[in-house]
Amino acid sequence: MSHESRVLPPALRGRLMSADAAAALIRPDDHIGMSGFTGAGYPKAVPKALAQRMQAVHAAGAPFKVGIWTGASTAPELDGALAAVDGVEMRLPYQSDPVCRQRINAGQMEYIDIHLSHVAQFVWFGFLGHLDVAVVEVAGILEDGRLVPSTSVGNNKTWLEQADKVILEVNTAQNPQLLGMHDIYYGTQLPPHRQPIPLVRPGDRIGETTLRCDLDKVIAVVETHAPDRNINFAAPDDNSVRIAGHILEFLSHEVRKGRLPAELLPLQSGVGNIANAVLAGLADGPFEQLTAFTEVLQDGMLDLIRCGKLGFASATALSLSNAAMADFNANLADYRRRILLRPQEISNHPELIRRLGVVSMNGMIEADLYGNVNSTHLMGTQIMNGIGGSGDFARNAYLSIFMTPSTAKNGLISCIVPMTPHVDHTEHDVQILVTEQGLADLRGLSPKQRAQVIIERCAHPDFRPALRDYYRRALDQSPGKHTPHLLQEAFAWHLQALRGERMGHGA
Amino acid sequence: MSHESRVLPPALRGRLMSADAAAALIRPDDHIGMSGFTGAGYPKAVPKALAQRMQAVHAAGAPFKVGIWTGASTAPELDGALAAVDGVEMRLPYQSDPVCRQRINAGQMEYIDIHLSHVAQFVWFGFLGHLDVAVVEVAGILEDGRLVPSTSVGNNKTWLEQADKVILEVNTAQNPQLLGMHDIYYGTQLPPHRQPIPLVRPGDRIGETTLRCDLDKVIAVVETHAPDRNINFAAPDDNSVRIAGHILEFLSHEVRKGRLPAELLPLQSGVGNIANAVLAGLADGPFEQLTAFTEVLQDGMLDLIRCGKLGFASATALSLSNAAMADFNANLADYRRRILLRPQEISNHPELIRRLGVVSMNGMIEADLYGNVNSTHLMGTQIMNGIGGSGDFARNAYLSIFMTPSTAKNGLISCIVPMTPHVDHTEHDVQILVTEQGLADLRGLSPKQRAQVIIERCAHPDFRPALRDYYRRALDQSPGKHTPHLLQEAFAWHLQALRGERMGHGA
Repeated sequence: MSHESRVLPPALRGRLMSADAAAALIRPDDHIGMSGFTGAGYPKAVPKALAQRMQAVHAAGAPFKVGIWTGASTAPELDGALAAVDGVEMRLPYQSDPVCRQRINAGQMEYIDIHLSHVAQFVWFGFLGHLDVAVVEVAGILEDGRLVPSTSVGNNKTWLEQADKVILEVNTAQNPQLLGMHDIYYGTQLPPHRQPIPLVRPGDRIGETTLRCDLDKVIAVVETHAPDRNINFAAPDDNSVRIAGHILEFLSHEVRKGRLPAELLPLQSGVGNIANAVLAGLADGPFEQLTAFTEVLQDGMLDLIRCGKLGFASATALSLSNAAMADFNANLADYRRRILLRPQEISNHPELIRRLGVVSMNGMIEADLYGNVNSTHLMGTQIMNGIGGSGDFARNAYLSIFMTPSTAKNGLISCIVPMTPHVDHTEHDVQILVTEQGLADLRGLSPKQRAQVIIERCAHPDFRPALRDYYRRALDQSPGKHTPHLLQEAFAWHLQALRGERMGHGA
Repeated sequence: MSHESRVLPPALRGRLMSADAAAALIRPDDHIGMSGFTGAGYPKAVPKALAQRMQAVHAAGAPFKVGIWTGASTAPELDGALAAVDGVEMRLPYQSDPVCRQRINAGQMEYIDIHLSHVAQFVWFGFLGHLDVAVVEVAGILEDGRLVPSTSVGNNKTWLEQADKVILEVNTAQNPQLLGMHDIYYGTQLPPHRQPIPLVRPGDRIGETTLRCDLDKVIAVVETHAPDRNINFAAPDDNSVRIAGHILEFLSHEVRKGRLPAELLPLQSGVGNIANAVLAGLADGPFEQLTAFTEVLQDGMLDLIRCGKLGFASATALSLSNAAMADFNANLADYRRRILLRPQEISNHPELIRRLGVVSMNGMIEADLYGNVNSTHLMGTQIMNGIGGSGDFARNAYLSIFMTPSTAKNGLISCIVPMTPHVDHTEHDVQILVTEQGLADLRGLSPKQRAQVIIERCAHPDFRPALRDYYRRALDQSPGKHTPHLLQEAFAWHLQALRGERMGHGA
């Protein structure tokens, strides 16, 4: 496909228009389903044009807000632009934009944090209200109207099916060779008509290479030529390398014990430096013929594919640095044999995660003595990003691993605390905790046994005495000794942190 | 099968022995997988004999404890007897025995609370250590060695497969006509060899009517003749009837809105008076051709089957009153066409719960302003029973409903609190909260919107002013306003309750 030919259906030629003209078709209070997942495949032009229109309307004294539903996080051109003009009534699901975050935490914008696997079905069920408009970036529109997906799939299938009206952004900066790298499953149904999802290996193709779209619903086609917002990862720092080391040692131990096959099981890995350090460790490690069944394809996974260690990766989006993106584009025909991008209702589906036996690795903000994990809220009240797919994976994984450096804010904050003031993953869903200090294997341990292992293996030595002191006093004074706590001081550490003091001092 | 003929394989005749002799084959520190789920199908004789032996060993100054793994709760003859002699090193999963509970909360017995769907696979994965002995009640042993399951299936398939040694209790008090009412699925595998589970309707038979057992592993067969510990439910009290009324009204509303089919979707219902009130309401309600995909079959479900409203019920155990049990036994041939009992790895399987689109109704201890639910811990530290299957269902259900009276302890305790000191179900897994006051539909609401609906719909009017006050001050003073909280007083209500005072007084 050349630049000129990416909108092939003659019927759509008359609907080509500017982003401003397309944005003018969006009404106040519309619910808009936008493409985009971790800075990949989000619409580049219409959200900005919509933000400008909103600003003008606001300046004229009238209200103009919309509901924004996406795959996951997007980029400043979408979340940032719309939040900056106070144009978002309700945002869902996962987001990571600093402007968005600031407005949400200031109480100026409503945000619903939803398991990523729940989003599409909630829309199908009618639980979130009616979807008015879909704004979806594609890499091209084929002659017969099928859409070539872009660098993320997210909830695009659902947006295109459920929305009354569709606005397509055809981005000629996206590689036309993406055609063939996607697997769009059209077998989902509403209960009671659902059938088993016929996927038993990460590489199984169960769907179509393109997105279906009722062209009669397409009210605008906007041509763009803009790259994704790729993230540049720093080289792994010491803590990340140590955490990765503990995980790799643990995986080898599990293989020796016969609890994991030599090629492991399909890997899920969150984004960020720790995740990339684990992947870098795998590149140098003893495991061959690895697979991934995950949300996002990071630099480290491309490296693993290139070095032959990773046989296949299933994901819903790319999340690459500029350098990795250049490599990806240069070698797309090769990568296409090793990568499938799927809707997030498939990449994150509990049925598939449990069937495949995924080894799940996710970051966290803090864990408590008993292994309850807070992934989302700073000091219990400020949302950081969202739960994303961590719940889909942790609950259904073969092994559920959560990881963090043991301290934050230059050692003022301990990431192991007496009690977390927000819980995203309960003790029931957390099997392994890892910090640079070590790895706590919580399988088969009661809460009290967990506490001792978590303190001694994961907490920073500077905080261990105070944690031991809390735990010992709780064990002595707690009305119940199944999960001992002192409710009057369970959050004393967080209150110290809120005052800018070192957690646990004076204990 | 007559009493005399229930142990048909000649090879097993020589292994018939007393419960005392069988218990003598159990060694200290053994991990024992016992049958039993909600007072149905647990071994009646060997646990008591084991407890007596332990008592003698303890009296002689020697230690003797074992690990007890079950399906879920059992009865005083098992959990109570072994806990009373301090014979349990580690108990898992769900339990509800008063002696067990007392010892766990006194810190004298270790307890691991596990999602019921996780137990079997954790044993298969080797995560809980080695299973030494299975002690399983059956209704009979067929000529070819196949076992006729009893009134619960639970984890029996896994215990029989995984244990080195098997002790069978053949209970002639169990109805021999149970043969044919079970569906034991033998298609589970370890990852990466798992396949889709071919069940698409609650009534689908996917397995065998009997349990397989390697007779070479059978070290003892003990004949018993003792009934299950059936529970007698009180007639629904006013609060239960009101809660049921709100739920039925809501289900009708969802049908009118087109969000549920006229015959609803498969129902899951916890045990207890509220659950039975809901089922009683359904017997008088407008819905026909209902189905159930649930853990336990209660009195109310039998009533629904008898009156023709419930077409099929899938469960893993019976949980009947004496009167209902008599009816069940008298009409077993009829009920067998409407009921299947399955392993709990199937009754609680995330893949199936999500596929079927279950309407899940579970009790809770308390919920917080934002919809986080505590199902297990009184005042955050004392275990009540356990999470059971509520997490399996709530996370994967089409609709996840939690219910409780709005107050406890004669109005001293509010079951809607500022913050729960223990979280079993996060806001992400809780869509509907119901008390006798009303129903809060949390779908599509942000945390702040949830708080207002929960206070005004679910909290008792006596506690609403104090809850509003906390919420308003939190909204004003909270560092983050996504999930507003005042950490310094988040548990003030629980501390009041621990002092015997009324929650929220003085606010």
